[in-house]
Amino acid sequence: METAELKERTEVAPQTRLYNFSAGPGTLPEAVLLEVRDELPLYGTVGSSVMEISHRSPEYTAIEASARAMLRKILGLSEDWHILFLGGGASLQFHQVPVNFLPKDGSADYLVTGTWAKKAFKEGAFLGNARKAASSEDENFTYIPDPAAWDLDPNAAYFHFTSNNTVYGTQVHYEPNVGVPLVCDASSDFLSRPIDLDRYGLIYAGAQKNIGPAGVTVILVKDSFLQQRNQPLPTMLDYGTHTAKLFNTPPVFAVYMVNKVLKWLDGLGGIPAIQRINDEKAARLYGRIDRTDFYRGTAKVDSRSKMNVTFRLPAEELEAQFVAEAKTRGLVALKGHRSVGGIRASIYNACPPEAVDALIAFMDAFEQKNG
Amino acid sequence: METAELKERTEVAPQTRLYNFSAGPGTLPEAVLLEVRDELPLYGTVGSSVMEISHRSPEYTAIEASARAMLRKILGLSEDWHILFLGGGASLQFHQVPVNFLPKDGSADYLVTGTWAKKAFKEGAFLGNARKAASSEDENFTYIPDPAAWDLDPNAAYFHFTSNNTVYGTQVHYEPNVGVPLVCDASSDFLSRPIDLDRYGLIYAGAQKNIGPAGVTVILVKDSFLQQRNQPLPTMLDYGTHTAKLFNTPPVFAVYMVNKVLKWLDGLGGIPAIQRINDEKAARLYGRIDRTDFYRGTAKVDSRSKMNVTFRLPAEELEAQFVAEAKTRGLVALKGHRSVGGIRASIYNACPPEAVDALIAFMDAFEQKNG
Repeated sequence: METAELKERTEVAPQTRLYNFSAGPGTLPEAVLLEVRDELPLYGTVGSSVMEISHRSPEYTAIEASARAMLRKILGLSEDWHILFLGGGASLQFHQVPVNFLPKDGSADYLVTGTWAKKAFKEGAFLGNARKAASSEDENFTYIPDPAAWDLDPNAAYFHFTSNNTVYGTQVHYEPNVGVPLVCDASSDFLSRPIDLDRYGLIYAGAQKNIGPAGVTVILVKDSFLQQRNQPLPTMLDYGTHTAKLFNTPPVFAVYMVNKVLKWLDGLGGIPAIQRINDEKAARLYGRIDRTDFYRGTAKVDSRSKMNVTFRLPAEELEAQFVAEAKTRGLVALKGHRSVGGIRASIYNACPPEAVDALIAFMDAFEQKNG
Repeated sequence: METAELKERTEVAPQTRLYNFSAGPGTLPEAVLLEVRDELPLYGTVGSSVMEISHRSPEYTAIEASARAMLRKILGLSEDWHILFLGGGASLQFHQVPVNFLPKDGSADYLVTGTWAKKAFKEGAFLGNARKAASSEDENFTYIPDPAAWDLDPNAAYFHFTSNNTVYGTQVHYEPNVGVPLVCDASSDFLSRPIDLDRYGLIYAGAQKNIGPAGVTVILVKDSFLQQRNQPLPTMLDYGTHTAKLFNTPPVFAVYMVNKVLKWLDGLGGIPAIQRINDEKAARLYGRIDRTDFYRGTAKVDSRSKMNVTFRLPAEELEAQFVAEAKTRGLVALKGHRSVGGIRASIYNACPPEAVDALIAFMDAFEQKNG
């Protein structure tokens, strides 16, 4: 039955946007997409689209300056922080961070809490002495290891962690206090809550979860930390190349989109507003999961992510049926990652509260029918 | 006078697209931009834009597969060739190429013909024994050095060259025959003419000149060449990581655009058609430059680029006036690079012949008034 319904639905293009729970690239604010549409094929007064202007033009320079100003405002970044928009994805940062900051005669600590954290650790260990401060791999990354049990090196050049684990639906709900500069892969919860900047040396985030389309990584690096980097370095991998000037062609369209998403976030009320909205969405969804035994959250309660909500149903067949039926109701991209199974609802900044409400209503109905 | 006219023009958004001679990001086919507009905020039947779907989804997989099939068709690439769509820009390739292919106990040859070629050589020399086979820096890169005078190492792991020099308006009009695999930065003339693939090991091209927006680099790598790479390597910098599978989130929107531009090119008639169009555009424009002494091409005649046409006027003030007046006639982005001065008209694949005709008409009128 689901198959027939599905076939019917996918053969007709929907006239409205569906509720999109994709883990990334994730949903974007509709208002931003409509603005982009209205600026095609002509952007402002340039006589072409934004994709066809020089990255040295006043128009593109203004876009980057606006995106930086927005980030400074939203996060309260002082001038001590450099803001970069680089291509290559957060995965390139797994290499670029230790290239710059792991000293030949020193070490760095890594908190291994999921797929991406493990990949970051692997690239650090490839280059030098990367130490595993703690790992939750023993229990399929269902929790964030207790800081009291972290094996810390007081001389580490930095402490690397992944603030939110997209695949496993866990999140670090505090700022680690480890006595060395924090380096954070914040790709999947960037700008969803405040950051205590004083503890950090560098923060990076692939745009495609919370702040834009795939194709650009935002990097925040503190000048005092930057000055400690290894030298000399390959030009493109040296963060100093990019803090000094616009070295090569940036991913223009992605930065243009990020600027629009930042303006949208600022218009909502910035971090305090989005944090409240995110807290409410997550509380409602976890509340529904916990209300009966039909749904079962996969992450330990105190490690639950407010961005990626992962849960199981009593049987795999029911999970497949859940995903397929949800799709026919306009709730899409709910299938969990194969490492966890079950359902994953990614409820990033741009996921509207109505989407969560619709999901909860569907969960109620599905349980009533199949529970 | 120019200032007032300009002010007037830029205060009103043009209702039509201007003739855009930007050196890159360059002009794109208008038909492609209109298609993109029509697919916002809803792409196909997915219920969201193309920027909001998983890079593992069937829809994105189909886009990448289509782009690869188009490239195979347009260039006649056999299955022996891998096709990659990576972020980070061609500048990252300056590092990634020698990381993979410059052996610790070997060397590579570089042809240094301009700004970007020099940067590529610098990154090779940073890592190992990169040899300068020839350079035209002695005459401000106004020519391509004669192959008879190249200092070649028969044991070089590869011979790196830049097929077209955007800044200086020169182009290598033949396929170097050097007895070792060619590695080519083809960013600014990719798909403007055929490539004799047998001689190459790897070809890379930042998309933002001829095949799409900034944010993706197309890499073609021959399997037999790939198998000779250094091991082990940092994961993201190892081409083998990306030929094996889709490792991390690609720049989805940029690849989606590249696919559309490739379809547009195929619809025109592929390489034979675009080469004829490009030859005609370049012949007409250089013909106009050479017709009188008022305009003077900066590149030696046999090294002239068919993509970037660089020329000077009798005085710098006239050049500034030319650029400003051209802008008021809807001919934009004609200012030459500071290393060359004067005028640069970039006439990439998507620059319509009418744009060149309009430029020539303006050049005639400008000379008549000021010559």
